[in-house]
Formats: sequence, C-alpha cells, structure tokens
Amino acid sequence: MTTLVFGHLSPDTDSTGSPIIWAWYLNEIRKEQAEAVLLGEPNTEAAFLLARWDLPKPRIIADVEPGQPVVIVDTNNPAELPKGINGADIRAIIDHHKLVGGLETKGPIEIRMEPLACTATILHKMIGADIAQAPAWIKATILTCILSDTLEFRSPTTTPEDRAVAEALAADLGLSIPEYAAEMFAAKSDVSAFSDAELLRMDSKTYEVGGKTFRVSVLETTSPETVLSRKASLMETMPVVATEDGADQVLLFVVDILNEQSTLLVPNDLVAQVAAKSFGADAGGADTIVLPGVVSRKKQIIPNLAL
Amino acid sequence: MTTLVFGHLSPDTDSTGSPIIWAWYLNEIRKEQAEAVLLGEPNTEAAFLLARWDLPKPRIIADVEPGQPVVIVDTNNPAELPKGINGADIRAIIDHHKLVGGLETKGPIEIRMEPLACTATILHKMIGADIAQAPAWIKATILTCILSDTLEFRSPTTTPEDRAVAEALAADLGLSIPEYAAEMFAAKSDVSAFSDAELLRMDSKTYEVGGKTFRVSVLETTSPETVLSRKASLMETMPVVATEDGADQVLLFVVDILNEQSTLLVPNDLVAQVAAKSFGADAGGADTIVLPGVVSRKKQIIPNLAL
Repeated sequence: MTTLVFGHLSPDTDSTGSPIIWAWYLNEIRKEQAEAVLLGEPNTEAAFLLARWDLPKPRIIADVEPGQPVVIVDTNNPAELPKGINGADIRAIIDHHKLVGGLETKGPIEIRMEPLACTATILHKMIGADIAQAPAWIKATILTCILSDTLEFRSPTTTPEDRAVAEALAADLGLSIPEYAAEMFAAKSDVSAFSDAELLRMDSKTYEVGGKTFRVSVLETTSPETVLSRKASLMETMPVVATEDGADQVLLFVVDILNEQSTLLVPNDLVAQVAAKSFGADAGGADTIVLPGVVSRKKQIIPNLAL
Repeated sequence: MTTLVFGHLSPDTDSTGSPIIWAWYLNEIRKEQAEAVLLGEPNTEAAFLLARWDLPKPRIIADVEPGQPVVIVDTNNPAELPKGINGADIRAIIDHHKLVGGLETKGPIEIRMEPLACTATILHKMIGADIAQAPAWIKATILTCILSDTLEFRSPTTTPEDRAVAEALAADLGLSIPEYAAEMFAAKSDVSAFSDAELLRMDSKTYEVGGKTFRVSVLETTSPETVLSRKASLMETMPVVATEDGADQVLLFVVDILNEQSTLLVPNDLVAQVAAKSFGADAGGADTIVLPGVVSRKKQIIPNLAL
C-alpha cells in the first residue's frame, strides 16, 4: 500500500514542501511507494513554491483510513492531524516542534526530531549524500522551506545548520537568496483573496494560558499595512472565529518580516492584559501595539504568553 | 548544571549501558557535562557488565528535581520513568520502543527513535566517526547491550545493523562473541540471590488487554530449570505482586535463550485462557506450557496478547 506523507492542517510552506521532499526520497532512493498529500489548501507562499517550480499540487485528504501507512512531517500534535491518525499505521515522524504527547504507535518506528528551524533541514540531513541524485525541484523545495521558516535567517529559530544547507542549495541552483526570498515573501504577503476569518485561521495554533484558550495567529508579511488596513473588520471577526473554534480569544500578531517586529491587534482589555503580562507592553488604550524584535511564535510569543 | 542520563526503572543491560555510553559521548565529544545514573539496582547481567569492564556503578536516583536537565534513553514511557519527569528539562530522548505518548517537552528537543533491537546501536550510529576516540570499555558496553537485547542475534528483533555493529566491535576488541555472550548469559541466569517477588518484577512491563491489567514478566536464562524448580512458590507469589502493583495478573515467561523457546507459568484458568487466545496453546490442565520459538516480548508476546 502506498505510504501517505503529510504535514499539519492549514499547510504552510514547510508542511507542503516537506511531504514532497520525503515522498521523493522514499520513492526514488528507498524504493518504497509514497505519495505527498495535504490536509488543506496550501497558503499563498506554499502555492508560490508549487507554481514557481512547476510542481503538481498534492491531493488534499480529509482523513486517513484505519491501517493506512503514513509518515508525519512538521508536527507531532494530534490536534493538527486527521481525526483518524491513531488508527493509521504511523511509519515515521520527522519534526522540529516540541513533543506534545498524544500520538501512539503500534510498534517501534523511525522518529527524528531536532531543534532546527525547519523540517526540511532535518530531511536534508537524513537524505545525506543521496542529495546528489535529487532533481533541481527537490533542492529548490528544501531551500524554500528553510527560507520560509527562518524568514530568510531573521528568525531567532535559525541555526547555523539551517543557514548552511540553504546557502549550499542556493549556490547549487544558481539562485540569489535575497531575490528569491523577496519573491516568496511577496507571494506570502498577497492576502487579498482571503476573508477576515480565513486570515485569522491561516497560521494559527491553540494554547491554554491561565485557564483561557487562545488561538495564537501569526501573519508574516512584507506589507503589514495591507493587513492592518483591515484591522477593524479583523477585530469584529475575532469573537466569531473564537466561538466557532472553541477558543476564548484570538490573538493576531502581524509579523513585519523586513523590519523584524510584530503588531498585535488589541480588541479588548483581555488582550491588553496579555500584552502587558507577556511582553511588558502598554497598549495605552490603542487598538494595536508594536512589539519590536518579535517575529517567532515558537521562540518569542509562546514561551512568554501570560495572563 | 550537569545533565543526568538514564534509562528505565528496573534497569537491564541496555538501560544500564546506554546511559554510560551517552554520558561519555556528551562529556568527551560534545563537551557537555553529563552523568549516567540508574533508576534502580541493575540486574545480574548489567552488574556483570560493570564488573567485567571495571566500571563504577552509576548512582541510583529516586526522582528528578524540577528543571533538572535530563536525557532519556531506552524508553519513552512515563510509567517507566521518575514521577517528576514532566517537570524536568528533557533535553533528548533516544529509544527503540513504540511511541507511548505522555512525555511532553517545553521546547523542541533532539528525539531519535529507530526500530533497531538495541538503544546502544542507535547511540553508535549517532556517535559516528567519533567512535574511534572511544576507550575499550565504551566499545565493550555497546557490544554487551547489543548481545543482551538480541540474545546473541537469536531474537527476531535483531536487525542487520545491530549485528554488524556488534561484530565490528567484537573484532576491534579481540573478543569471541560466543564466548563473551556465554559469560553474559551465565551471569543473567544466576538468579539465586533474588526472592520470588523480585524475580517477578525483574524485567516486567504492564499492559492492558481485554479490560484486564497484566504485568508481563520475562526471565531470559540459559538455565530455565533453575527458575522452573521454583514454580510453585513463584505462582503463590503472583497474586501478592499483582495486588501490590495494581495489576490483575502476573504473566511469567521463562525464556530459554539457547533452545529459543519460552515456558509460561499457568497458575489459573485466566492464564490458561490467555495462552489459548494469544498463542493457540492448550495447557491441558498443566501448570506450565512451552511456547516454541517465542523469545521476544516486544515482537512475539505483546503483539499477540489476547483474552
């Protein structure tokens, strides 16, 4: 049976690209039948990756059948995976997030997690010398994932290993990293086609803090003013999304990639309190607050989140 | 702060040797301060390893302090770890068992699990070319762990990789594998110093099957008759151990390493039913039943366990 390789729900670039990379490796190097699939529509940057390298869009699946062989990349969190995941035959998990707990396997399997910025960097390491056999589109996919997850090496999650792999691949492909990253970020910043609710859910993870459930949403953009021009309707939509998704509050951080700062929308006193307790930031009654240097949910937002 | 490296409760050879191997690697190669510790008294084979290579017995710890940096080897099961484990600062998990779920980490960490017979084989792979810098006692510890977990390559868990590593290390050390393994297994088979309750708990894991909780105990020996001569008092002690440990029934499999078979003690109808449903074996009223070819709890006993 063909092994399905997928990342998390609401696929970003790493969760779209890493399944493509690993399915190539399983098919071509390990000679095991595999198919990259998605758990939803890719975001605009991931769609750019597919279009730029002429890759067919992976099939979108809604759930997995019992016993289906699967490889999970870029998450180990059951809440970000299909409902039937613990009934599937999980063959491998390759990830760079904290261990959440909740996934179980029937026997010993291959699990590889490392504190690197990007799943694709781990895949590159596991592919090893066989990368010489990879076509340009595989190398480009690895590069794109790394530039995406590191915000072109700006994010504090960036490790020397992520950077070295990306620079070697860019040189190999004859690509200028600044030019290519600019194309990627322009694609990511084009959010005109999305509704407010879609924007609030695009790159969002749920966390419990001080007895409340927060949907912590991040929008990485080179054009924060485009998003912030919609702040009134975004704030109106927050309670709707929160209620529908079983959260108490949506927190939206608009990450300005080029200026390396975030703007947090402050629709009410609860969020003003979160801003004060988490970042020592005083909204002073305004409906937005700028957080200098804050670009990483994983390293800077979540570890500080307090109420 | 010094990182503590440990395996599971009731340490066998792999859970005694792997912390020693990895603490050496962290101290000498990665230049990170680390100490191998134990979560209980090592079994007789593990004690042989220490005596044979003149290794100091690692300190035994009862629990871990909040924030204590730790590396977990040879398990990922919170039930086999100190009570305070989820309050510790888990830095890495290296294991070859199925993913159980229940461990959580505060941030992304290094996790490496592979379906190999022995944790030490994974450690050898991670050490890579630096193995050239390892002293004889580290190479011997890796070899001993592999021969223990594979029952000298007899267990169906054995992979070509485990075997290749063991054979290369034995050649390097100038050791004959058959002679050395015979010394190890003789040590493991000397259980005269242990009470019946200690024998039932020596190498034991708890599983839920059909609504009942079983303590599945395995005794690997080259001298099964030594253990079986105590079968009456072992069976009398089973209900005591079961009650004390919150289980419904102890299952004791006496694994005959050389003849590659197990003898299951059958103290009552419940165990007779387990034997029939799990292995198609009819006790026919006898108090023991031989299971030809069955030597691995992981590959042969647990996957078949039924009620």
